[in-house]
Amino acid sequence: MAVFEKTEYQERINNTKHSMAEQGVDMVITSDPANMNYLTGYDGWSFYVPQVVIISLDKEEPIWIGREMDVNGAKCTAFLNQNNLWGYPDDYVQTPLKHPMNFVADIIKKEGWTRKVIGIDMDTYYFSPRAFYVLKKELQNSKFVDTSLLVNWVRLIKSESEILLMKQAGKIAEKVMHTALDKIHSGVRECDAVASVFQAQVSGLSEFGGDYPAIVPMMPTGEKTSAPHLTWTDEPYKTDQAVNLELAGCRNRYHCPIARTAFIGKNPPAKLENIAKVTVEGINLTLDGIKPGLHCEDVEMIWRQFLAKHGLEKKSRIGYSMGLNYPPDWGEHTASLRPNDKTVLQPGMTFHMILGMWMESYGFECSESFYVTENGVETFAKFDRKLFIRD
Amino acid sequence: MAVFEKTEYQERINNTKHSMAEQGVDMVITSDPANMNYLTGYDGWSFYVPQVVIISLDKEEPIWIGREMDVNGAKCTAFLNQNNLWGYPDDYVQTPLKHPMNFVADIIKKEGWTRKVIGIDMDTYYFSPRAFYVLKKELQNSKFVDTSLLVNWVRLIKSESEILLMKQAGKIAEKVMHTALDKIHSGVRECDAVASVFQAQVSGLSEFGGDYPAIVPMMPTGEKTSAPHLTWTDEPYKTDQAVNLELAGCRNRYHCPIARTAFIGKNPPAKLENIAKVTVEGINLTLDGIKPGLHCEDVEMIWRQFLAKHGLEKKSRIGYSMGLNYPPDWGEHTASLRPNDKTVLQPGMTFHMILGMWMESYGFECSESFYVTENGVETFAKFDRKLFIRD
Repeated sequence: MAVFEKTEYQERINNTKHSMAEQGVDMVITSDPANMNYLTGYDGWSFYVPQVVIISLDKEEPIWIGREMDVNGAKCTAFLNQNNLWGYPDDYVQTPLKHPMNFVADIIKKEGWTRKVIGIDMDTYYFSPRAFYVLKKELQNSKFVDTSLLVNWVRLIKSESEILLMKQAGKIAEKVMHTALDKIHSGVRECDAVASVFQAQVSGLSEFGGDYPAIVPMMPTGEKTSAPHLTWTDEPYKTDQAVNLELAGCRNRYHCPIARTAFIGKNPPAKLENIAKVTVEGINLTLDGIKPGLHCEDVEMIWRQFLAKHGLEKKSRIGYSMGLNYPPDWGEHTASLRPNDKTVLQPGMTFHMILGMWMESYGFECSESFYVTENGVETFAKFDRKLFIRD
Repeated sequence: MAVFEKTEYQERINNTKHSMAEQGVDMVITSDPANMNYLTGYDGWSFYVPQVVIISLDKEEPIWIGREMDVNGAKCTAFLNQNNLWGYPDDYVQTPLKHPMNFVADIIKKEGWTRKVIGIDMDTYYFSPRAFYVLKKELQNSKFVDTSLLVNWVRLIKSESEILLMKQAGKIAEKVMHTALDKIHSGVRECDAVASVFQAQVSGLSEFGGDYPAIVPMMPTGEKTSAPHLTWTDEPYKTDQAVNLELAGCRNRYHCPIARTAFIGKNPPAKLENIAKVTVEGINLTLDGIKPGLHCEDVEMIWRQFLAKHGLEKKSRIGYSMGLNYPPDWGEHTASLRPNDKTVLQPGMTFHMILGMWMESYGFECSESFYVTENGVETFAKFDRKLFIRD
């Protein structure tokens, strides 16, 4: 059963068609698993083989095309009529002889869509150059247009039901962060602490279970805090080191990322305590300043001006739109809280804002996932903003 | 520090260069995180932004190019000289204005490689059509050749050190499967059982920790067993249902997948017990029949002929090469145990072989990950092959 009401999917499809008409395309083919889920409800770990959803202006429902063995999964999770589900046989899988996009082109021909203007996302995950060339070769009367992020932009403003799921993800994120802080102690292996975090993420709460976040937990310490995407080792955490905790809760593929910093040991350096205080003041101030009608770049400016008062400068992205997603990223690749981003904030937009300040040997970071309300913002997780001390 | 000795990376690079010379290319650019790791040691969850390793016949070491903030991670994990690490600034990230492949092309120009024959994998994860077009546009004097899976084929035969890591992954897989069987009982929520499996995967053993497998645990039950890639829900497992457990252990990105089937309840249907017996007999027979010198297709034929004796037919892939990998797949997309695959089995090749038989309402499956030895095979995990009964 699809997670949302059929009417919600229909609204999403209508919004997508509206955007397609504006961009002058007759149909879009999307391989992004988050877009596929958004438009149909389809949810499965099958994106390691090519699969697409096609939306055409002249057809009410989307078409789902995937591997034959995944059609049952589509029946279980997508709201679509069964005659809009197509599965390619296994002899299309991982072979130089033919490609799943040959099958997709055949369906497009069967639907009589060979002379259409087709929108494609040229820079998305799970859509290869070969996939594109096969489509172009098979559909020589079609015109292909790069409509990168078209559906991602439709996803920007969340519905009430989506916000509800992200609030549930927020509750899971609170439990996950508590678990991480409970487990991190001197002598505990990194892998054991991270294992408990995974357990908390997937188990979720007694009222509702958790889902796998699109990014694994990051809990670097020592010199690895300057290498933000290294995963854990089986070395133990050590005393007198800071640990950056970049975690998330996930519910039905909707995320609430959250970051905090802990210091292992009784006596954190005064410098670390000081930058923690400054950063928390800055994040509070920035969150308080967000209102509908501001541009995304204005939010970054609040933080930058605050830093300048402390004699510091850092011109970079401090946040990004996020929500529904799959590995390898929970970000939506649309609006960013960064200089020159003119996106106007509106109620229902959802961001992960992550603020950090870095010294020579450690840093302090703190983040919030929030949605824009009529008057300001509300965070999905409620969790103290401070430096946590663990001995 | 890189996981393997520098000499091992050098041998891998030499094997790759040998294959490049055979295929008539001067250099290869690979974006596959498993290939990047294989050739340099680089390991991080940074593949959600474009990154590449370049091997050129006229340069001893590979070049690593990634996001600036990930250069420190490359310093920590890759064996490369620091002057072979290049980081692109953050204003290349997720913007229509420029692309990380513009930066990659600039490095290629700086190296004087603008008139080379460049091998590209046209059908890999994490390399988009836009990435390819940018390279083509920036390097108009280069000739691009599709050398799909070139490095993947070099990965086919594992070294002793790789086999050692896969044996460790096998030990973790044993613990993971024990954990799953312990947790699965009537009334336990799927998410809680899967959470314990994640915990076991990442924690690993007291001697060495675990890593995140490239595919999340699959533990479907009831009608979902016919939809193999649906992930868990928060519904409880029910009595008198079979559960298919498709799990893995992972150590330093090397995998040991393992599948078993459990029945929840005191009295499994005689039909299920019967297909379990037949399938286990078949997997034992097939494993016993594998020897160096056979073709991959011969292995599938052993299983198919066994099935035929029981009046059954199923002509499909029953296994595939696997080892080092990242999400979304642990398979290497090279040799498959399937009809028409003429790959000759050699010692050091590693496969996941998964055999299953399906009735109307449930199925029985059982798999082994193994390496080919001088005389036959050895499985990485040692685990009973049978139908497990859980009440």
